[in-house]
This record gives sequence, C-alpha cells and structure tokens, in this order.
Amino acid sequence: MAEGMDSIQQTAGPKDQTPSRVRGKQRDCSLGAHPGSQKSRGKALRPDTRQTRARMGSPVHRVSMGDTWSRQVHPDIESERHMQSFCVEELTNILDGGAQNTALRRKVESIIHSDPELSLKDNYFMTQNERYEAAIKKKFHIQMLAQRLGWSEDSRELYYANRSLSGDLGLALQFVFQKALRSLGSEEQIARWDPLCNKLQILATYAQTELGHGTYLQGLETEATYDAATQEFVVHSPTLTAIKWWPGDLGRSATHALVQAQLICSGAQQGMHAFIVPIRSLEDHSPLPGITVGDIGPKMDFDHSDNGFLQLDHVRIPRENMLSRFAQVLPDGTYIKLGTAKSNYLSMVVVRVDMLSNEVIPLLQKACVIAIRYSVIRHQSRLRPSDPEVKVLDYQTQQQKLFPPLAKAYAFHFVAKSLLEFFHRSYSSILDRDFRLLPELHALSAGMKALVSDFCVQGAELCRRACGGHGYSKLSGLPSLVTRVTASCTYEGENTVLYLQTARFLVKSYLQAQESTSQRSLPQSVAYLTAPDLAKCPAQNVADFLHPELYTTAWAHVAARLIKDSVHHLQTLMQSGADRHEAWNQTTVIHLQAAKAHLYYVTVKIFTEALEKLENQPAIQQVLKRLCDLYALHGIMTNTGDFLHDGFLSGAQIDVARKAYLDLLLLIRKDAVLLTDAFDFTDQCLNSALGCYDGNVYERLFQWAQRSPTNTQGNPAYEKYIRPLLQGWRSRL
Amino acid sequence: MAEGMDSIQQTAGPKDQTPSRVRGKQRDCSLGAHPGSQKSRGKALRPDTRQTRARMGSPVHRVSMGDTWSRQVHPDIESERHMQSFCVEELTNILDGGAQNTALRRKVESIIHSDPELSLKDNYFMTQNERYEAAIKKKFHIQMLAQRLGWSEDSRELYYANRSLSGDLGLALQFVFQKALRSLGSEEQIARWDPLCNKLQILATYAQTELGHGTYLQGLETEATYDAATQEFVVHSPTLTAIKWWPGDLGRSATHALVQAQLICSGAQQGMHAFIVPIRSLEDHSPLPGITVGDIGPKMDFDHSDNGFLQLDHVRIPRENMLSRFAQVLPDGTYIKLGTAKSNYLSMVVVRVDMLSNEVIPLLQKACVIAIRYSVIRHQSRLRPSDPEVKVLDYQTQQQKLFPPLAKAYAFHFVAKSLLEFFHRSYSSILDRDFRLLPELHALSAGMKALVSDFCVQGAELCRRACGGHGYSKLSGLPSLVTRVTASCTYEGENTVLYLQTARFLVKSYLQAQESTSQRSLPQSVAYLTAPDLAKCPAQNVADFLHPELYTTAWAHVAARLIKDSVHHLQTLMQSGADRHEAWNQTTVIHLQAAKAHLYYVTVKIFTEALEKLENQPAIQQVLKRLCDLYALHGIMTNTGDFLHDGFLSGAQIDVARKAYLDLLLLIRKDAVLLTDAFDFTDQCLNSALGCYDGNVYERLFQWAQRSPTNTQGNPAYEKYIRPLLQGWRSRL
Repeated sequence: MAEGMDSIQQTAGPKDQTPSRVRGKQRDCSLGAHPGSQKSRGKALRPDTRQTRARMGSPVHRVSMGDTWSRQVHPDIESERHMQSFCVEELTNILDGGAQNTALRRKVESIIHSDPELSLKDNYFMTQNERYEAAIKKKFHIQMLAQRLGWSEDSRELYYANRSLSGDLGLALQFVFQKALRSLGSEEQIARWDPLCNKLQILATYAQTELGHGTYLQGLETEATYDAATQEFVVHSPTLTAIKWWPGDLGRSATHALVQAQLICSGAQQGMHAFIVPIRSLEDHSPLPGITVGDIGPKMDFDHSDNGFLQLDHVRIPRENMLSRFAQVLPDGTYIKLGTAKSNYLSMVVVRVDMLSNEVIPLLQKACVIAIRYSVIRHQSRLRPSDPEVKVLDYQTQQQKLFPPLAKAYAFHFVAKSLLEFFHRSYSSILDRDFRLLPELHALSAGMKALVSDFCVQGAELCRRACGGHGYSKLSGLPSLVTRVTASCTYEGENTVLYLQTARFLVKSYLQAQESTSQRSLPQSVAYLTAPDLAKCPAQNVADFLHPELYTTAWAHVAARLIKDSVHHLQTLMQSGADRHEAWNQTTVIHLQAAKAHLYYVTVKIFTEALEKLENQPAIQQVLKRLCDLYALHGIMTNTGDFLHDGFLSGAQIDVARKAYLDLLLLIRKDAVLLTDAFDFTDQCLNSALGCYDGNVYERLFQWAQRSPTNTQGNPAYEKYIRPLLQGWRSRL
Repeated sequence: MAEGMDSIQQTAGPKDQTPSRVRGKQRDCSLGAHPGSQKSRGKALRPDTRQTRARMGSPVHRVSMGDTWSRQVHPDIESERHMQSFCVEELTNILDGGAQNTALRRKVESIIHSDPELSLKDNYFMTQNERYEAAIKKKFHIQMLAQRLGWSEDSRELYYANRSLSGDLGLALQFVFQKALRSLGSEEQIARWDPLCNKLQILATYAQTELGHGTYLQGLETEATYDAATQEFVVHSPTLTAIKWWPGDLGRSATHALVQAQLICSGAQQGMHAFIVPIRSLEDHSPLPGITVGDIGPKMDFDHSDNGFLQLDHVRIPRENMLSRFAQVLPDGTYIKLGTAKSNYLSMVVVRVDMLSNEVIPLLQKACVIAIRYSVIRHQSRLRPSDPEVKVLDYQTQQQKLFPPLAKAYAFHFVAKSLLEFFHRSYSSILDRDFRLLPELHALSAGMKALVSDFCVQGAELCRRACGGHGYSKLSGLPSLVTRVTASCTYEGENTVLYLQTARFLVKSYLQAQESTSQRSLPQSVAYLTAPDLAKCPAQNVADFLHPELYTTAWAHVAARLIKDSVHHLQTLMQSGADRHEAWNQTTVIHLQAAKAHLYYVTVKIFTEALEKLENQPAIQQVLKRLCDLYALHGIMTNTGDFLHDGFLSGAQIDVARKAYLDLLLLIRKDAVLLTDAFDFTDQCLNSALGCYDGNVYERLFQWAQRSPTNTQGNPAYEKYIRPLLQGWRSRL
C-alpha cells in the first residue's frame, strides 16, 4: 500500500508535479535493461519462461481527484501493479512520441487541473444550455491562460490542454475552418483569414451538410450565383432541404461560415465550391440580413457544441470570398479550374485523418481504462464454491469482452500515426496540384476513418456493457464516451459510403493489377494484390499462429480473394445485361465485405511493422506483440467463414487458432491494468467514478450520486401527485 | 394523394376514430380473398408471378400529430402504400391477437392522445427532474382516467394505455413487486398486499441489486436476521457495497420495497429470501427510521424513472413480511424449506418473459418504423448519372442494414408469444411446487432474454445509424429508443451470465442424451440433440435455401455440433487435471457460442411453426415467410464459419445462400413500409420527427428544433465570454 501511496500526489501544481523519488524510478526504468524480455518471440509467449520485474515503478504522474479516497489505492488494483513485465513509463513515452512530450503534456495537465474554472466535475448534471455555456467559458479561460503563458496557436501546449479537457471546449470548428482554408484557399486568402482566426477576431465554422443532404457532395442544394455587375456571389438556400444543418458552433456562436455551395457563373453550374460567408454581426452578434440561424436542438451527445442550422436568403458576399486554390472566378465571370473534381475532398481528408488521433481513438482508450480498472475491483461469483468471489477480470468472458478493444486501442494508435505520416508525405505535393497520390490517400483515409470509428464504437460499447449496471450510469463516464464516439460513424462521411469509396479504389486497383504487367505502378497499400499467394495456410500449431508474417499473409489472402470475388460478381452482372450503376448497387454488400477485409489487412500490417521498430525495447515489444497477435487472431475468430470459404484454413486449424487466441487472453490478463495505466489519462480527464487510478469505485459512486440534482433539488411530484394518489383511497373508504 | 388524405384523421376523439369509408375497406380486407397470394412457396417467391392488389387500404387508424403537415402524405411514402401484396390491417390484427384487440387498442390510444396532460411532446427538451415529474403526473392522470372509465387493474385497457405512452409512466415497479409477490408470497400474503398495490395504498418496488453485487444472487450482502424474542427480522446493510442500488421508483417515490436479503435464523445462513420493508412514511413520505434513501443520479436513459439507493440500518419488520410460499420461518426461528434452491428465481423468470413483449421488442419495432419510413423520404446520390437522386431504401446496403432488424422485429414477436405460452403452461404447476419444468423454463427464458435483447439493441442501433446525422438528433426519436433498449442487456440479468445459464442446461442435456437410451426424457427445446443428423447440407440452388425444413435443420446441426464441441473441451480440460470450475471458466467463450447457436435455432423453429398456422391467410403467410427466410439466412451469413467448419456447407453453397439472401432483400423492399405500418404505432407514441406516418420529415424537424430550449432561452455565453473574446483584439491593437 505504501508503494501505491508514494506514487500518488494530490492536486499537483504546475511547478512540481513529480516527486523526486518517483522521478528517480522513471530514469531507472528508461535506462535499465529488462531481464524479463525475450528476443525470441516463440519463447516470449510462454508464460512460464517470462520473468517479471517487480516494482519497476507505477506511472509517475498522478493528479488525483483531490477527494478522501485518492489518498490510498485499493488493494485489489494495487496488486495488479505489483509485478510489472514492462516499464509503463517507457510505453507512455512511446505513445506520446518521446519522453519530452510526456513531460510537457503532464505540465499542461497540472496547470489545467489546478484551475477550478476548467473542472469537468459537474458535466453529468448539466442541461444542454449549461453544457454549452460551460464549454464556451472553458474556451475563454484557455485563451486567457494561453495568452498569459505564451502558448501559441497550433502549439503542443494547446493540443494537450484540449486533450486534458476531453475536447469539452467551445468554438472547436475554428480549427476545421482553418484546415479547410489552408487546403482550399489561395495564399492571399490564407494570409488574410488565418490570422483573424488565430486571434479570434472572427469565430468560424464549416457548413457543408444540409437538412436533406449529407455525404453526397454533389447533391447539396445551396447555390452561389456570381453577379458580374457587382462582383459578388449571391448565396442562397433555394429549398427547405437546402438549409445547412449540423455544423458545430453555428447555432449560437459563429460569426462566419465556410459554406459549401453549388457555384453558378455565367449561367453554368460548376459544382461545389467553398465560400466564406459572414453570418453574425461582429458588433452585437445579431444575424446579418438574409441570415436565419439557430440551434438544431437536443442530440445523443455533444451537448457542449451548438450544432446549428443556417438558411441563406440571397446573401451577397464579395468575389474574393470564394476559396480559390483549385478554382477561380474572374471579375467578368470566367470560371478557371486549377484542380481536379476531387480536389474539394482535400479538406475532408485532412479532417478525417486528424479526428482519429484527436477524438475517436482516445475515446476507446478511455473506455478501456475505465472498464479494465473497474473489472479488478468488481468481484462476482466464485470460481470454486470454497473460494472468495473473484475479480470479474478473471473470467474468460470478461477478458473476451475487454482485451480485443484494448488491442484495438493500441493498434489504432499506430494506424493513425502511420496514416498521418502518409498524409504529410503527400499533402504538400497535392497543394502544389500534383494529384498522383490523392486517390490512394483518399481511399485509405476514407476507409480507415470508417473501420477505426466502427471498431472504436463497438469497443467502447463493449467496455460500457462489461461494467454491468454501473456502465449505464453517467457517473461511470462510459455513456458519454459511447454516445460521443458513436457520432464518429456518421460525421465526416457516413461509414458505409466511405467503405464503398475504398471499394471503388480496390476494384480499380484489382483491374489495374490484372491488366498491367508492371507491378510497380500499384499503390503501396494494394501491392499485395500482385504478390504470390498460398492456397492453404501452413500453420499447424499454436505457435505458428503467433507469427506476424503468417497472420498478415492470411489477411492478405482473404482480402485479395474477396476483392477478386467482388469484381467477379460485378463483371458477371454487367455481362448479363445490368448497367454499370445497377450492377454496382447489387454488389455493394459484397464490396463492403471486401473493403473491410482489405482495411483489416492494412491495420494488421501497420501494427506488425510498428512493432519491428521497437526491437531496442524488448519488454515493451513483447507486451505489444501479444496485443498485435490478439488483434490479428480476434479478426480471424470473428470472420472464420472468410478463412474457411476456399479452404485456406481448415476447421481443425481454426480450432488451433482459437486455442492461440484464448491463451493470449490469459497472458494479457497479467498486464491489463498496466496497459491501461500507460495511456496516462488523468482522473479528471476520465471523469469517471469507476475508472480512477486508485480504484475506490464504490465510495466515489455513492458520493457523486448524492450531488445529483435529483437529490439536491426538491420533489414537487410528491405534493402534486404522489400524495393525492396515496391518500385517495382514504377518501374513498 | 387523395387516397392518403382520406385515410388520415386529425386528433380523433374516443367516440368516432374511424371514418366509415375506411371502416368499409377494413371489412373488405378481412373478408376478401387475396388474388395475389400463392399457396405454393416456390412460386410465391418469384416476384414476376406475384400479382399485387392495389389499394387494398392503408392502415385504417391514424391519429395524427395535429400539425399542418399531417394533412397531406408525402408522395414518396404514399407511393410505397399504393401497391399492396397483403392486407396491412389483417397483419395488424394478427400482431394484436385478433381484430377485437386492435379495435380496443385504438380506442384507448384515441383517449390517451386526446388528453393534453398525457402528451410526450416535449420529452426531448426536459431535464431528468422534469422527466420524472412528468412521468408521475402521467401516472396520476392515467389513474384518474382508469377510475372514470372503469378500467380495472390488469385490464387490457391499462396495458394499451401504457403502450401508447411508450412506458413513460412513473411507478412502474409496482407491477414487478406484484409479480414477485404472486410468485413467492403465500396465499395470505397475496390476499393482504396485492389489493394495497392495486388501490395504490402503497407504492412498492423490488430491491435486489446492490452497489457491489448484481446478477449473482448468492453474493448479495444485505442481511435479514430473525429475532425470535420480538418475532421480527432485522434488515441491515452491513457494508457500503451492500447498499441497494438501481431499483426503479426507489429514489424518490416508493413507500415499500421487496428487499432480497440473506436470511439468518437461529444462527444459520439460509440464503436469499424476499422481505417487504416499509421505507417511507405513508403520512409525509419521509424516510422511516434506519432508512437512507435517494436517487442514483443521471443515466444513459430512463430519466423518467427514479432509480434509487437504499441503505438499511437495523430496520425491524414483522415476521409476516418474509414472502413464504417456498420457505417459512416459524415464530421460534425454525426454518422450513418448501421449494428448491431455484424457486427464488421464479419471480425473475416471470419478469424476463414479460419484459420482452412489453418493453424490448416494441423498441426495436419502433426503430424499424422510423428508419424505414425515413429511408423512402431521404434521397441521396444517383444510381445512374442521368437519374434523379434515389430513395436511400433502394440501396442494397441500406436494405442490408434495415431488413434483418425488421425480420427480427417480426421473429421476436412470435418468439415472445411462444415463450409466454410455455410459461403459462408451466407456471401454475411450479406454484404448486412441481418443479419439473423449471430447469427448461429457466434456461429458455434466461437465454431468450439475452438473445432477443442483444439483437434488439443491435437492430435499433443499426436503424439509428441508417438515418445518418438525423439519427443522432434526439428529435428523431431514435437515440432514446437505443439508449433505452440498451439497458435491457443488463437489467434482469446480465446477458453473458444468462447465456451461460442456458449453456449449463445444454451441457446437462447433452450428457443426458449421451447416457440415456430413452429419448423422451429430453426437454422439448433440446430434443434435436438426439434427432438424426446429416453430415452435409443437400441444398444446391437458391430455392433450396428457402425451405424452412432445410434451414431449421441446418441450424440444429450447427447448434448440436457446437454443444458437442463445448462439452468435449470441458471434458478434455478436466481429464487433463483442471478442476471443474476452472475448466468451466476456461471454456466459457466456447459455451457462449454454443448457447447462442442453440437459441438461434429455437427462434428459427418458432418462427417457422408460427407461419404454418397462417395457412388460411396466404398473402400474409407469404410476406412473413420472406422475413422468416431472411432471418434464418441472415443468421447463416453472419456465422458462415460455423456452417463451413465441419463441411456441412461448402464455400459454393455459402455463395448460393448469399444469393438467396440478397434476392430476399429486393423482394422485401416492396413491402417494407407496409410491414412497418402494420405495427400500427401512432405518431404520438413514436414521437419522432423522422418517423411519422405522413413522411413530412424535414418540415417537422425544422419546426421541432425551433422549440428547443437552446433557441427559446437566452445565450448568456455571448455577453460573458464570446463578446470579450471577439473584442479582445481591439484593445490589443
């Protein structure tokens, strides 16, 4: 217990958040060799040969909730941290991209959490209006802080501040507006508008979706008609369904909107373009002439954000307000196209890549932290009649619920990182109008957004349900994580539509692979379509299924087969007389399956490649490899039919793979709490009665419940209805 | 359009809710033969031979929302009702259990919806406290209505009133208390307490779950110690984790609780028993001595219900307050057991059977109604470049999302009905202490609760997501359906625990089948374990996969194989030295899979048997058979590995089954809106801007949003934070 108490620090200030003794340990940990780690992978997975290194130091940085129970760690969770097969701090540093980042992040967190104006404490008790006001208030205070401490826009400090507040800040769309501006605007436009945003001289949002139109850009109805006489665009919502609907910060906050509209100039429709439209007065915030604007009302979550509607009645804006990197309208109305039809997608690609690391994946990670910590405090039933009740995490079914999401939480960290690197490699050439990498970037970012968000939603909900009844209480923190991450399947492109965009790319790539004799022309992510393929998987025993080459190849085989099958079905339908579009529609269920398998293959490949780079940190490599194995095998276990279909795996092999999978659950069990500690979320940021570092679940739940307005406000229902009901019978006697 | 307008009636009063012309149609429909129906199933499924009967009459009873748009039906949804291959009214009657029930239900709905006190209109804008008060208010008004109109307790009228209010009524636990009382109480106890409940002289709840204990009954810590000196029980919460947590109506309403507690008499622990404990004064509603009671705070949904906590400090209750049908404590403290260890489960069985029809399945049905209606209004993209944008329901991927849940919504109607019949057959003998049927009843009701709630949650969420962004708006009605049905996976027994209870029964049944030579001793639901089995499925073409015998047999084969496999794994582990409990834990993932396959088999069987009884209504039989086929094949498609594993199906056969499945989607497409109309939910009860009968989606969404407090209340954030932020730069210039 003393060990646990040492590593805890109450409400630390910004100056000295790391006790020296613990700091010493941290150094120890990052320099020392790991006697428990094994280079040989086959060996590394046998638990009996694994030596563990005791007291390697629990995470060094804890900013507690400042309540009574934070002073002692529950023994049931302390025991989980006693034996450590790897250095948690080292893993945290990897996730942060270096120890310096970890230190900076913690410094920012200490500042944020010591400021009472930035507390998330009563979020679960607030109405939508209160949440909105609190989020704007936090944004205001963050700006004051940034000014005082010299945190610049785009700085790591502000990024970490946002992370520590779980994105519960108003005016978040400013950043999306700026990403779009920088992607679609000319250099002059960027130079003009970007500083206005940075200094909050304007508050901007991005208005694409309409009441009757979403992911299908070409269907948007809003019009921008060029009037050469005045050199203005007339922006207009011609119908009810053309009203912009959903943009964040639009309902009650924004002064400007980047409006996606159908450009009409010199009588011709030129497709979707982006226009900067002032919507509210900078003097008194009232809607400008021709603008009808408001909030769209209650949602499943995102209460802090004022998603809004915007109806435009012939609103005139200057010619310079059309973003013109890829297209221009000259004063006389001449339209000049500089990009491709797809260049408008660029801003969406940016946002999709970003949202995975900054919003979607952390939500899954937090859900894992809460559910796994709670699962070592919660006891239920006995494994043997004479034993005490066991920790629910010792049940195979609980491990089966929680460890695949944990493996995904790690897998996707590396996937998002890799995607971001690919994005940065291609972005500048695209800005310079070299579009060669755009199709692959678009297909990969669309598909990964869909796959990652789908699995994060599924995983977060599994975590929530794994906490039983308490997972249904908002005080657990899980309902808000789930209802928030769920939105990511829909915003920035509906997932089914996105999978099918990947599928179209796969069909093209497959046909290209068939036609061409030169293999080098295939984009990297689909190069496996021309690689040699085995008809049958050679795996014979459990250890075989733990070879990254083996399961990566297995996934490549299945993906390639399904892509081939989907193209075959498409071609067969077309040969039998269906037109191209009808044939596509009648095979989309099959294309969907192929796209998902392809994307799963890519994620497995990225995860295994990321692990190869950790060869100098063998203990970390070992524990992450188990997660990678689990990720790959869980995918096989939930799609056995795809592997059995052509006999690539036999039923007997599936049983062996299942054995390998179940064995991994037991191995991961030992490190589970440490693997969640490594994400290093502060208790304040988790804001969960179930998920605090110290494990004092029930005390906190009981205390938090008593703060609820259902207890602190009166009950008018008694006098009005309950008393008359109860006493009604007496008068009837 | 005229047709649509005729069939609509605005805010009907109780007296004359059915225009005579429509009434005429209804008679027509129920008497007439259906030229379009085909007795031969093979033929019936070929769309080209299917004759449709135009203008067979849209559902006859519509109580509109009373807004402007209800007066005309959107042409995109009207066209869906133009050609009808079956009589919607007839199907509604089947679902209601007879035309008389339909008429009575509609009469009650008209009464409820014409009472402004019972409107659900502003639910989505309310706080938790406001929802609670509104729900108690509605309960009060319903009681007044019941008294005025002579609706007795347990009457169909009250049942329909509750349905029409989507269960948004306070004091719902009274009924659960009564079910438990009638199951576990002696005749004297029932005679004493039941009338008190009926007359609302007491308000009771059922208190089982504790802060630290849930589904595992034996782990509950609350104690009831018998004191022979005073002939009282002393009911006590010995620890923090023993506090009762979650019971509905407990937080702010109930006067009495049925407390499940560990009985201690004459120094011996006798296990869980149920005790009636008064908790609040009948005079002024204040907590009684020794009682600490309150609300557990905000939840994912169920805002209308005051789920509460209850801490008991040596609370004394008379000896007569222990429910004593299956166990008694004599005045001197002698304990007499009259039932088995399982008899305490009886009240849970009752509630589980009930909740499926009354709560869980209707939530899925409503989600289907909303999503399918919206999907014929929503247009997106073009199938061909020259075409107008198409209804999203014409996309195969949208059909793939919505039709399997629709098939489940129908399948589970028949499953719940069949389960209820089985329950009624066995209940009275169990009350008379003949426990022979209890194991099967327990295993089947536990497993079905798990399977049905799992699929209803999954289906409702699919429907929500299929509505894109608008499915995330509370105004769609879908978020509340999803967050509400989600709870059913946890309450009344956590689903994983329940599946494993079914699995234990399957293991026992399998071993019994192996040991015994007499087949008749196997319970009916597992009789297939001794039936002759094929090693390979004989299906060769699409039509083969549409034979109920074929797919029922296929499911039986897979279930039997998985059960055998799970027993084999269990035995192997035990033979290799693991003890029984450890071996069980290490095979639970496998048992889970077996239990799910078994339960799926049972549902397929029930659905096919229900269809056989509809031979006199061939048009209805035909349309439901497609849903049954889809249900069975969708199960195969999502579990192909289980069918391929031992070669029962080949990869080529899976492809044929997929073809059959995809063809069914197209066939069901034509009847989809009618199939949702047949559930006959009123617009008020759906309370959805997307799901109204008339299809005027966007008008309603726009108008409803404007009523939101985010628009009607001021925005203090502007003066406090936004203005200072925006104008800050000027002072800095």
